[in-house]
Amino acid sequence: MSTLGFIEYENASPEVRAVYDDIMAARKTDHVTNFWKAIAHDPANLKRTWQATKEIMVDGALSSLTKELIYIAISASNLCEYCIAAHTFAARKKGMTDAMFNEMMAVVGLANSNNRAIAGHRVEIDEQYNRKP
Amino acid sequence: MSTLGFIEYENASPEVRAVYDDIMAARKTDHVTNFWKAIAHDPANLKRTWQATKEIMVDGALSSLTKELIYIAISASNLCEYCIAAHTFAARKKGMTDAMFNEMMAVVGLANSNNRAIAGHRVEIDEQYNRKP
Amino acid sequence: MSTLGFIEYENASPEVRAVYDDIMAARKTDHVTNFWKAIAHDPANLKRTWQATKEIMVDGALSSLTKELIYIAISASNLCEYCIAAHTFAARKKGMTDAMFNEMMAVVGLANSNNRAIAGHRVEIDEQYNRKP
Amino acid sequence: MSTLGFIEYENASPEVRAVYDDIMAARKTDHVTNFWKAIAHDPANLKRTWQATKEIMVDGALSSLTKELIYIAISASNLCEYCIAAHTFAARKKGMTDAMFNEMMAVVGLANSNNRAIAGHRVEIDEQYNRKP
Amino acid sequence: MSTLGFIEYENASPEVRAVYDDIMAARKTDHVTNFWKAIAHDPANLKRTWQATKEIMVDGALSSLTKELIYIAISASNLCEYCIAAHTFAARKKGMTDAMFNEMMAVVGLANSNNRAIAGHRVEIDEQYNRKP
Amino acid sequence: MSTLGFIEYENASPEVRAVYDDIMAARKTDHVTNFWKAIAHDPANLKRTWQATKEIMVDGALSSLTKELIYIAISASNLCEYCIAAHTFAARKKGMTDAMFNEMMAVVGLANSNNRAIAGHRVEIDEQYNRKP
Repeated sequence: MSTLGFIEYENASPEVRAVYDDIMAARKTDHVTNFWKAIAHDPANLKRTWQATKEIMVDGALSSLTKELIYIAISASNLCEYCIAAHTFAARKKGMTDAMFNEMMAVVGLANSNNRAIAGHRVEIDEQYNRKP
Repeated sequence: MSTLGFIEYENASPEVRAVYDDIMAARKTDHVTNFWKAIAHDPANLKRTWQATKEIMVDGALSSLTKELIYIAISASNLCEYCIAAHTFAARKKGMTDAMFNEMMAVVGLANSNNRAIAGHRVEIDEQYNRKP
Repeated sequence: MSTLGFIEYENASPEVRAVYDDIMAARKTDHVTNFWKAIAHDPANLKRTWQATKEIMVDGALSSLTKELIYIAISASNLCEYCIAAHTFAARKKGMTDAMFNEMMAVVGLANSNNRAIAGHRVEIDEQYNRKP
Repeated sequence: MSTLGFIEYENASPEVRAVYDDIMAARKTDHVTNFWKAIAHDPANLKRTWQATKEIMVDGALSSLTKELIYIAISASNLCEYCIAAHTFAARKKGMTDAMFNEMMAVVGLANSNNRAIAGHRVEIDEQYNRKP
Repeated sequence: MSTLGFIEYENASPEVRAVYDDIMAARKTDHVTNFWKAIAHDPANLKRTWQATKEIMVDGALSSLTKELIYIAISASNLCEYCIAAHTFAARKKGMTDAMFNEMMAVVGLANSNNRAIAGHRVEIDEQYNRKP
Repeated sequence: MSTLGFIEYENASPEVRAVYDDIMAARKTDHVTNFWKAIAHDPANLKRTWQATKEIMVDGALSSLTKELIYIAISASNLCEYCIAAHTFAARKKGMTDAMFNEMMAVVGLANSNNRAIAGHRVEIDEQYNRKP
């Protein structure tokens, strides 16, 4: 039961349809997933979020697959089940193997554990870390 | 002012020294950083944490550089300054450029934002996401 | 399947019933929602939590509607589905429109994103921010 | 010691300067704060973040003051000191009194506490919360 | 530089002084720590927070030392340095040894790591966990 | 629908079976729970996680019951439902009463609330907290 309900293509304003069209073209699919249909109640936000996604999640200095792995890592760290499911799907499409998933998850566990060890011990930052190596 | 203080090499037990030696050998340095000296008060934990780090943060299905980027991403998401500083240092040693750092950070921002959008809208998981693509 | 089960009115002690009565009177309803029935196993905590809610969530320097919006914002940020559902319901009763919900959610996304950008970049606090404007 | 250092106006590219100019015009100041100078290493991200901020943090269905309060609430919930300092400054400029700040913080505490009570007790969502009131 | 500044005893209202007196009596000290002086700008909140602390942090089904350990565990998990420092101090007063601190921190690390493993793997709850053992 | 599916005993490699056998022996049961079957896709991680659990969650300076309580506290704080369910089950087996659960949860609520109060108020650490009591 989503909070505001979903805006389906047939009920969407031209502004929202334009974003939906762009999403479907970019993803080579004939439908838009629930996330976009939920945030479409705020067309400016829909547009901004899609624009950011389109600009950020592409190949650059990092491959789009690496970016999907980082996205899943954050989503697992925040316990966001929808996001984990959606971006695992996307990452697999881009070539993520189970071995890659497992190694990413191992880093997520290690970092989440050590972040707290450092906090609990109130560890001062080593002087060298304020310089470039 | 760290909680338990640091255990320096000269005051360390043989068990702790063995781990310190292994860290310095693996990192090709002549000193051990504050994190390890803080958790060394619990030698079993020191050993376990170092062992996990050694096994996880190496090249595998993902490169060790990709793993460092994921580690920084989690640490930034959790606002752990020590960890950000330490792993930015490590990632740079392994070849992280400023462009890579910036792209990783853009994904961290996007995921942290969208994780909350999905929660607030109570978006149901699309059926397709329960299958492999 | 809640952890301790719910304490229904008919099985409640006089102490718990007094709080339930006060909740129903304040909310002009004839039933108590699951949250209260779950924490009623600890009557002192039930009383304290209801007392705090009653004192905090009223009109003051901020309207009770603004407070509900802040409550949803925190709950979305923490990914607490029950709390999002319950306080969206409460906020709507107090006049929250879909536009207000959407604007609040946009701020939640922006803040969650920027909080991490600032952490990752280790941005020092500007001197001016330690003074009043 | 910020991770990438700050990009000052005099060393900025025309693209970055255009954003800085827009920030200073919007805020009626003659300088840009550290956050923007840190993220300016990624001009596309700088532009996107400023654009989002400009679109989101204005008067709409919610006043810009209410939005600043929500922003501080999230930042306090995430323990982001820079963000708390910066947006407390901004909120005061827009009229936030100490009483408003205190009431907002009381809601932040209550919500953060109750979010966990609900999780620990595994409270099922009341049927009514899946409907509009 | 605290947000609202501290309210010292000599400048406090009778209502605030009454709470300060009670804190000092309970702790057998002649001063009040910064936390209380910061939240004293909202006397009702000060009173409520102190009352909750007094009722919760005492010996009961759990010893007050066990409660301090849980308090530190949450604070380390949330990366709240003030709270870690304050409650490590309090726990030591109540008999916490370094060994206890280290074992508590090991659990914090393990739980923070496993919480994310379970999220990333989207593990369904075993049927048995919905029953009492 | 778990991300990688579960590895059942009959399909497990000898390496994974050895861990499963050890888990079942330690817990005196004839089955392995979903968590282990999910992470078994990465046998090295399975082994490491089980080894850490076995070493950490035993009686030491803290009782294994106290450790289970800390584990639930962290899991409730992180809103991890699986972990809350699993460790409530485990804690009850070790003697956790409802009163203990309720007192632990009260501390979780208090700490989560106060952690944010301290952040929002930017409270400086009292000098005394940098010393031992």
